Amino acid sequence: MISVHLEAGEVSVRQQAKPRRPKGHALLRLLCGGICNTDLELQRGYYGFSGTPGHEFVAEVVAAESPKWIGKRVVGEINLACGHCDWCARGLGRHCPNRTVLGIVKHPGAFREFFTLPEGNLLEVPTGVTTDHAVFTEPIAAACQILEQVRIPKGTAVAVLGDGKLGILIAQVLAVDGAKVHQFGRHKNKLAISEKAGVIGEMVNGALPVGAYDYVVDATGSAEGLRSAIAMTRPRGTLIMKSTVAGLVSIETAPVIVNEITLIGSRCGRFKPALDLLRRGKIHVEEMIHGRFPLAQAAEAFRQAGTRGTLKILLDSQ
Amino acid sequence: MISVHLEAGEVSVRQQAKPRRPKGHALLRLLCGGICNTDLELQRGYYGFSGTPGHEFVAEVVAAESPKWIGKRVVGEINLACGHCDWCARGLGRHCPNRTVLGIVKHPGAFREFFTLPEGNLLEVPTGVTTDHAVFTEPIAAACQILEQVRIPKGTAVAVLGDGKLGILIAQVLAVDGAKVHQFGRHKNKLAISEKAGVIGEMVNGALPVGAYDYVVDATGSAEGLRSAIAMTRPRGTLIMKSTVAGLVSIETAPVIVNEITLIGSRCGRFKPALDLLRRGKIHVEEMIHGRFPLAQAAEAFRQAGTRGTLKILLDSQ
Repeated sequence: MISVHLEAGEVSVRQQAKPRRPKGHALLRLLCGGICNTDLELQRGYYGFSGTPGHEFVAEVVAAESPKWIGKRVVGEINLACGHCDWCARGLGRHCPNRTVLGIVKHPGAFREFFTLPEGNLLEVPTGVTTDHAVFTEPIAAACQILEQVRIPKGTAVAVLGDGKLGILIAQVLAVDGAKVHQFGRHKNKLAISEKAGVIGEMVNGALPVGAYDYVVDATGSAEGLRSAIAMTRPRGTLIMKSTVAGLVSIETAPVIVNEITLIGSRCGRFKPALDLLRRGKIHVEEMIHGRFPLAQAAEAFRQAGTRGTLKILLDSQ
Repeated sequence: MISVHLEAGEVSVRQQAKPRRPKGHALLRLLCGGICNTDLELQRGYYGFSGTPGHEFVAEVVAAESPKWIGKRVVGEINLACGHCDWCARGLGRHCPNRTVLGIVKHPGAFREFFTLPEGNLLEVPTGVTTDHAVFTEPIAAACQILEQVRIPKGTAVAVLGDGKLGILIAQVLAVDGAKVHQFGRHKNKLAISEKAGVIGEMVNGALPVGAYDYVVDATGSAEGLRSAIAMTRPRGTLIMKSTVAGLVSIETAPVIVNEITLIGSRCGRFKPALDLLRRGKIHVEEMIHGRFPLAQAAEAFRQAGTRGTLKILLDSQ
């Protein structure tokens, strides 16, 4: 049985025994995985990660505590919380200090034929949502998280900076929610995907508007992007920080304070709203799939995913 | 008639004619002014300022459109808004894009014997509040602004970083509002002032607590302080950015995003709640007065105010 292994920047494929199923966990057989920018960052050495990566997946349940799961096609929330601390009691297991995270922190990931996850983390993929589309549940959930943190009145103009994978999903999710989304990017073909969901694509060829939006989302993953996002936010406006920038970022604090801007860090979200959007066919993901490889060719898949301009690369179990 | 002049870092005193009173303005005679860190920053060349500084003041009204003001002892809001734009219509003249700011942006300041301000900006100083204490209205209002932006439940532990002038006032205002305030600083004598208002002083001699507070206020004015403040904030917590740092500040974005922290820039506030606190004798300001000089010795006053460890320096009209 095949398992992808990441160590010191090298992606390799190993033979691995079927994992033991811990109590309360389901044993899952991978159907399809998606390579995320976080996986590429793990490859670059962030978090000192070594092991099996992968947290975007669709799988089939092959064994479980509760028989109702057997044979179901599922996605799964990636944070494994302790279930006992104050955070867990508040329903915020995503912030549990004892958590492990599938394929990111102290829990082997989904890029292997068989892996395990607590049954409480699983959600069935609705009939009518293809496996290829359901792989996008996790990043769509991350986009939906914005709506749990910030109430954006319908019809409000929102700027989304960046036209990478996450930017495209965020722009679509906010547009479907009723915002008037302007997405700023440098790739006509990528902006064209969001435009199908009613987003207004804005090709960036120079200066960006200043103090122009009450809501701005930074999904650029760059220091320059974050600085532009601050400058684009109107006084008393809200800037949602959605993509981390590796290392230190230099910003000016004066405009944040003088204009009384609110910056909100935003990470993972609940899967249910994301699956609902997919079921309703509201989010255009098909056009985001730029390639697919079998698990055995994971090294090539990672190389392709890391190539400039590439959107989603999928990994099939066979 | 004497006027303080600031240009290219030099403080001088000039003779100046009594200013003409524009329509809707009151002509004010300075009783007492306070030197603020912003004044020292103007001296260091920020904003390319040249002219009369001063925005913390108590004055007597000597001429006005409306006779009710004549002879009154007043303080005054420092932002001069246009009164016609959307911001002004929303009662947010402090963010009016056409605003000038007393002694900071395109409006001569209060460090002169006579100056003018719109009558709408004035508030009478209540009987029972001394002129020396009323000079603190503006910075106390800035501290009170936090309470307009963030609802802090009574009894909640709040960390205030910094024991400079603004930090001492913020710590006291939040404590009086019912929070359990821990103020982190490096000066026992300064922390002792806040402690009189029920603040818990925490002398910093090494590592600060990490992920320990749901509410953190940065009033250090330093890049290191802002970084510490981010580290001290619990997941889902709120960090109020109250002091600007000159130039660029390097921060890590990952903890902000992973822990979903909210950062809120906070600037000036309304004067009314500040005057109420002074009237009720809740804020200890007397101990913050470290010296006083007549206007004619403004250069020496600025020198003293800029000396390490100095809190408030007052300027008397005579």
